[in-house]
Amino acid sequence: MRMVDLIEKKRDGKELTTEEIQFIIEGYTNNSIPDYQMSAMTMAIYFQGMNERERAELTMAMVNSGDTIDLSAIDGVKVDKHSTGGVGDTTTLVLGPLVAALGVPVAKMSGRGLGHTGGTIDKLEAVKGFHVEIENDEFIRLVNENKIAVIGQSGNLTPADKKLYALRDVTGTVNSIPLIASSIMSKKIAAGADAICLDVKTGAGAFMKTLDDSRELAKAMVSIGNNVGRKTMAVISDMSQPLGFAIGNALEVKEAIDTLRGDGPEDLTELCLTLGSHMVYLAGQAATLDEARNKLNEVISNGKALETFKIFLQSQGGDPEVVDDPAKLPQAKYIIELEATEDGYISEIVADEIGTAAMMLGAGRATKESIIDLAVGIVLKKKIGDQVKKGESLLTIHSNQEQIEEVKQILYKNIKISKEKVPAPILVHEEITH
Amino acid sequence: MRMVDLIEKKRDGKELTTEEIQFIIEGYTNNSIPDYQMSAMTMAIYFQGMNERERAELTMAMVNSGDTIDLSAIDGVKVDKHSTGGVGDTTTLVLGPLVAALGVPVAKMSGRGLGHTGGTIDKLEAVKGFHVEIENDEFIRLVNENKIAVIGQSGNLTPADKKLYALRDVTGTVNSIPLIASSIMSKKIAAGADAICLDVKTGAGAFMKTLDDSRELAKAMVSIGNNVGRKTMAVISDMSQPLGFAIGNALEVKEAIDTLRGDGPEDLTELCLTLGSHMVYLAGQAATLDEARNKLNEVISNGKALETFKIFLQSQGGDPEVVDDPAKLPQAKYIIELEATEDGYISEIVADEIGTAAMMLGAGRATKESIIDLAVGIVLKKKIGDQVKKGESLLTIHSNQEQIEEVKQILYKNIKISKEKVPAPILVHEEITH
Repeated sequence: MRMVDLIEKKRDGKELTTEEIQFIIEGYTNNSIPDYQMSAMTMAIYFQGMNERERAELTMAMVNSGDTIDLSAIDGVKVDKHSTGGVGDTTTLVLGPLVAALGVPVAKMSGRGLGHTGGTIDKLEAVKGFHVEIENDEFIRLVNENKIAVIGQSGNLTPADKKLYALRDVTGTVNSIPLIASSIMSKKIAAGADAICLDVKTGAGAFMKTLDDSRELAKAMVSIGNNVGRKTMAVISDMSQPLGFAIGNALEVKEAIDTLRGDGPEDLTELCLTLGSHMVYLAGQAATLDEARNKLNEVISNGKALETFKIFLQSQGGDPEVVDDPAKLPQAKYIIELEATEDGYISEIVADEIGTAAMMLGAGRATKESIIDLAVGIVLKKKIGDQVKKGESLLTIHSNQEQIEEVKQILYKNIKISKEKVPAPILVHEEITH
Repeated sequence: MRMVDLIEKKRDGKELTTEEIQFIIEGYTNNSIPDYQMSAMTMAIYFQGMNERERAELTMAMVNSGDTIDLSAIDGVKVDKHSTGGVGDTTTLVLGPLVAALGVPVAKMSGRGLGHTGGTIDKLEAVKGFHVEIENDEFIRLVNENKIAVIGQSGNLTPADKKLYALRDVTGTVNSIPLIASSIMSKKIAAGADAICLDVKTGAGAFMKTLDDSRELAKAMVSIGNNVGRKTMAVISDMSQPLGFAIGNALEVKEAIDTLRGDGPEDLTELCLTLGSHMVYLAGQAATLDEARNKLNEVISNGKALETFKIFLQSQGGDPEVVDDPAKLPQAKYIIELEATEDGYISEIVADEIGTAAMMLGAGRATKESIIDLAVGIVLKKKIGDQVKKGESLLTIHSNQEQIEEVKQILYKNIKISKEKVPAPILVHEEITH
């Protein structure tokens, strides 16, 4: 088999066979296929696409390119949740304890990564003492005992995807549905998920800006998952503005606690109930989505969700007292209000620019070497559709620097106020199960 | 400027600017742009194409990537002729002396290369003593004196094209009209041509198999040439069967001599008159194509074309006596007739397979290291449309090996005989001047 023939085959719009897809991914992983052939192939895929079978096989070839995590020692259906990324997305922090409180095993492998705020591990490390450096056996034991544990990424998971993603990033082939979908799904499958619940963001602050593109990506991933024997569903949710109020690590932990207590932002709460219902249903802990939602509301009101969060933090060395006393989380030196300069209605909150402002405060990493300041960030007071009066606070900036003129300017520029009333955006656009 | 942005721009079907095209070619030549980005770019060009301006600028960027030949010391309009390649294409050997006899300066830089038979230099070396190792000054002097000389390729001509071609060859992007056209034209322009006469082959034995594809390539090259100030025209000629009768180095030299004397194969003679008329016209040595053709016929019948060939051979150390006594050319040990096994009409002579048979005899190079046997090859006796009787000779095999069963089998398999009469293929399909 020669790679050049396979490039021409895909270039001409033909289907690649199982063997051909395996040859490509194995060869690229072991360096027998050079980058310059792989980038021509990905550009051909960009233009010609891949059908359902090819996508599923590409995903499994990437899964098989490295280690896979065996979660079979954990009782129950392991449901993983994945978000395509947005600004102020606190859902993972909420959903873990929330569904674990209903007996759904949450065996989360998580990372740090680049972005507006830290990854799930960074956020949890805002809780004093919390750590993810635990042995695999201990991880399994904790999930079986408490139904929830988080471990740092280890092992050589999907090396083909890592190499391919780095190549796509510099060759203009990131934005290809089959390649995005197989990349995401291969990581979830390698990490041992039995079922997968996807939160595909849509809007200005999301990777996919339009509902059509988001739907196409969601359907592609759902199809891959179900084709390779992992029950998979996707929610398409709004990211035209940040989700919830908090953007920043400790600030998001506090927001998660509020939400688990039933006092969270309306949109974050609703999205967590929607995603959580599907997770509980996929895990077989409820016969219908309605039953699942009722159960979730119950563990919020009876305190079991919050209690599960406490146990989870304590089991991995964290101080559980933060749950009742969030002042124990890292606090920024300066808390600065950003006041509205005119009367009107919030018409736009440009999510990624708000995220960039949070990153400039120190909440996220611009490069791998950046050090995160867990205390800093932004807490919105207003969301799209809210009425605002001149002088009223739009948001609170939590900063460890006093001079933040540049951050303020970005925030003012990206929060727009109109004279006419503007409707709040739709939160959950679609739920896709096949 | 970042290459990844330019890849995305072309991928999205947008035009690249002059500066962007220069950045790409300069960067690729000096290795600041890696192969893996360039192959993604060429695949994007494969799908999105390039407009006339982009093609012309790509061509000139490749010309400017290395040395260019200065032929200004040669009097007159230097017209170069280029063929897109076929089997038994003896036109260059004929056209050089033919137009030189009318005062058109032929300053030919030529190569060896891979293929069914050798390059122009290999063929000419079948003449004892002939060599192309001459100094540049001597080359210029010879062209001014005799109107014709051939020199080996020297200098660092179009390094961008060399590097790019090698990459395209292994990444499935050879077959792109803008890339083929700019590759060919950049080499002709760097070699110093004032005007260019292109022979674009079409049919089973050509790179472009269909008339539509051949026309598209011809138009692309003519447009590039004329857009960068080189008068350029193209003839689309038949390569559904080999041109002329001879396939092999010394055999083609003999055929060229026959043609210059007026005794050549009908198709080869006609194509040389067509291409030659355009060359004479482009050089300003005739006011019309008809006048040019009349002049060419005149130098054939009065012996001046043949005399020019003699002077040319002698001026570069070759034995001019081969012209009157072709037996002085290298002769193969065995001359074997291939007899027809049935009565009928020749319906097909698969050109590239016949070329492969000649290469197996030793007439061409399969790899750079292969050594050519100048004496061997094939001389057709019949062409498509000719009647043939069982036992009659289809062709003569000139070989230095006695055992050539495999070659014979290929030849039998690829010369088809039908019961019904078949028309001879059209030789010159189109002449494209803009």
